[in-house]
Amino acid sequence: MQENEIIERYFVKNRQRHDVLLPIGDDCAVVKPTPDTEIAISCDTMIEGVHFLSDAPAAAIAHKLVASNLSDLAAMGAEPAWMTLSLSLPKADANWLDAFSLSLFDMADYYGIQLIGGDTTTAPLKVLSLTVHGLLPKGQALRRTGAQVGDWLYVSGTLGDAALALHSLTQTSSQRVVSDAWAIEHHYHTQPRVRLGQILRHHASSCTDISDGLMTDAAQLMMASGVGALITLEQLPLSTVMQQKMPMQQALEYALYGGEDYELLFTIPVHRKSILESAVKDLRVPVTCIGQVKRQPDVAYRWQGQPWEAQSDAVFQHFTS
Amino acid sequence: MQENEIIERYFVKNRQRHDVLLPIGDDCAVVKPTPDTEIAISCDTMIEGVHFLSDAPAAAIAHKLVASNLSDLAAMGAEPAWMTLSLSLPKADANWLDAFSLSLFDMADYYGIQLIGGDTTTAPLKVLSLTVHGLLPKGQALRRTGAQVGDWLYVSGTLGDAALALHSLTQTSSQRVVSDAWAIEHHYHTQPRVRLGQILRHHASSCTDISDGLMTDAAQLMMASGVGALITLEQLPLSTVMQQKMPMQQALEYALYGGEDYELLFTIPVHRKSILESAVKDLRVPVTCIGQVKRQPDVAYRWQGQPWEAQSDAVFQHFTS
Repeated sequence: MQENEIIERYFVKNRQRHDVLLPIGDDCAVVKPTPDTEIAISCDTMIEGVHFLSDAPAAAIAHKLVASNLSDLAAMGAEPAWMTLSLSLPKADANWLDAFSLSLFDMADYYGIQLIGGDTTTAPLKVLSLTVHGLLPKGQALRRTGAQVGDWLYVSGTLGDAALALHSLTQTSSQRVVSDAWAIEHHYHTQPRVRLGQILRHHASSCTDISDGLMTDAAQLMMASGVGALITLEQLPLSTVMQQKMPMQQALEYALYGGEDYELLFTIPVHRKSILESAVKDLRVPVTCIGQVKRQPDVAYRWQGQPWEAQSDAVFQHFTS
Repeated sequence: MQENEIIERYFVKNRQRHDVLLPIGDDCAVVKPTPDTEIAISCDTMIEGVHFLSDAPAAAIAHKLVASNLSDLAAMGAEPAWMTLSLSLPKADANWLDAFSLSLFDMADYYGIQLIGGDTTTAPLKVLSLTVHGLLPKGQALRRTGAQVGDWLYVSGTLGDAALALHSLTQTSSQRVVSDAWAIEHHYHTQPRVRLGQILRHHASSCTDISDGLMTDAAQLMMASGVGALITLEQLPLSTVMQQKMPMQQALEYALYGGEDYELLFTIPVHRKSILESAVKDLRVPVTCIGQVKRQPDVAYRWQGQPWEAQSDAVFQHFTS
């Protein structure tokens, strides 16, 4: 199958947005945002063996690729609009491409984002790179830099499940601690918090998404704002499965270091706490207050009233050589 | 070296454009185009062993990555504005990153494009993916679809040099037909025809860039416009080195099938021929009329007044399995 054939067969069956003037098929796509709109742009790459297991289902890979990218848009409060896909594969496997593209367009349709271009090439292993574009009303981007001393620190959803799921999937069948269905669901099929992010534009003083683990991302959020935080570990939201299957110490380590949760971590000014909680009530995405912003520029953790020592072996660092 | 360190050390020393509201460092970049501007978007990926030789210099890889992407913007007549880079490397080699980022920013500064975001990950081999954004005045995108019967078909620069250069670089030293300096220059350090593309917005009826070889790209351009073309092979612009080092038959094959020339291929309405030629005179980029658009929907070639049979072994097809 040649590049044009692959594009024609799998990647043009795309819902057409009104702001896409020229879709797939020319040297570039052409888009036209409405006046006074700002554009949020982000890209994320997934590589076989690094970001997904070699035997991961094509549909799961597509879902995770879109979800992890949309999570960055969610963290800015942006509305998903356009994406470009660079797809490098060892061979053009029709079944794989079918499952991949169906799952990709399921996500695209659900979140209203249109695939407007891309590139397909051969490679010795699967490499997928997505660039996403989201729209923002003028001046309303949710930055990392606005956290103020006294703000409450919140997180959405539950933490650590993606890492627990991955750990289980890499074990032999008899050693797996959770069901494969749960693991696939929680490692690959996470839902980006797009709607929550848009609501947070009106309430949060700062926001980021949790991709490298709470510990890393909380430190970055506080550093960007020039403040620190105190986090109470008893407050960390843990799923029922996590609580049932894991001893508390290990559950906390998944929650703190695991990464790939794609939940939002954000700060709320004191006077907006109850307004926020009622604003998100209808979303069916739990938000949990896990701590507070403080002046001293570090992130401290407490467990049962005592300081809690962070482990040094952060799991998801790249280029640790 | 960790991801943040790499970004901080090599990728933030960036010229700041006035339309970039939030550069590298948050979950997304945020940009704001002026009202009535349209945005051209394209992405291209380069993979070690597929798009560049494993021993290619870092500076050459960066140059080619930016050049090949800007060539797509040039083909739309767009003005380069923003780019995101996804960089996957086996290890964080300081010398390599230094040379790569310097060359990347040389190109970025020259063409006025700002690096606004990206992603760095580990991978078993080097994978580089760039997404570029260019600006267009409303309604002025140079599409592939406007060629009319009778229009003249033009190409910029010379054809086949990038392929001749690559062929030479893959030979043992004693067999190399051109100097390594010439080969590196013509395979990696091509200049995208950005300024020419912007001039062509006012003159050309259709345009594309030549990345897969004249034969493939001419066929696609004509198909997009629903017409055909007659190309006279004696007219193909060949470099002095090509003419001196290669027998004519082989030179023509490089020019037709070689690929990665990153020249522009465009059509000019009959009444605009002389206006076009005077408009591009000051650019120091030769443009050559190589044929004419015809009604019959194929691309025919003539050599010394006779029909010329195309070879079937197109060199640069992906996924030919």
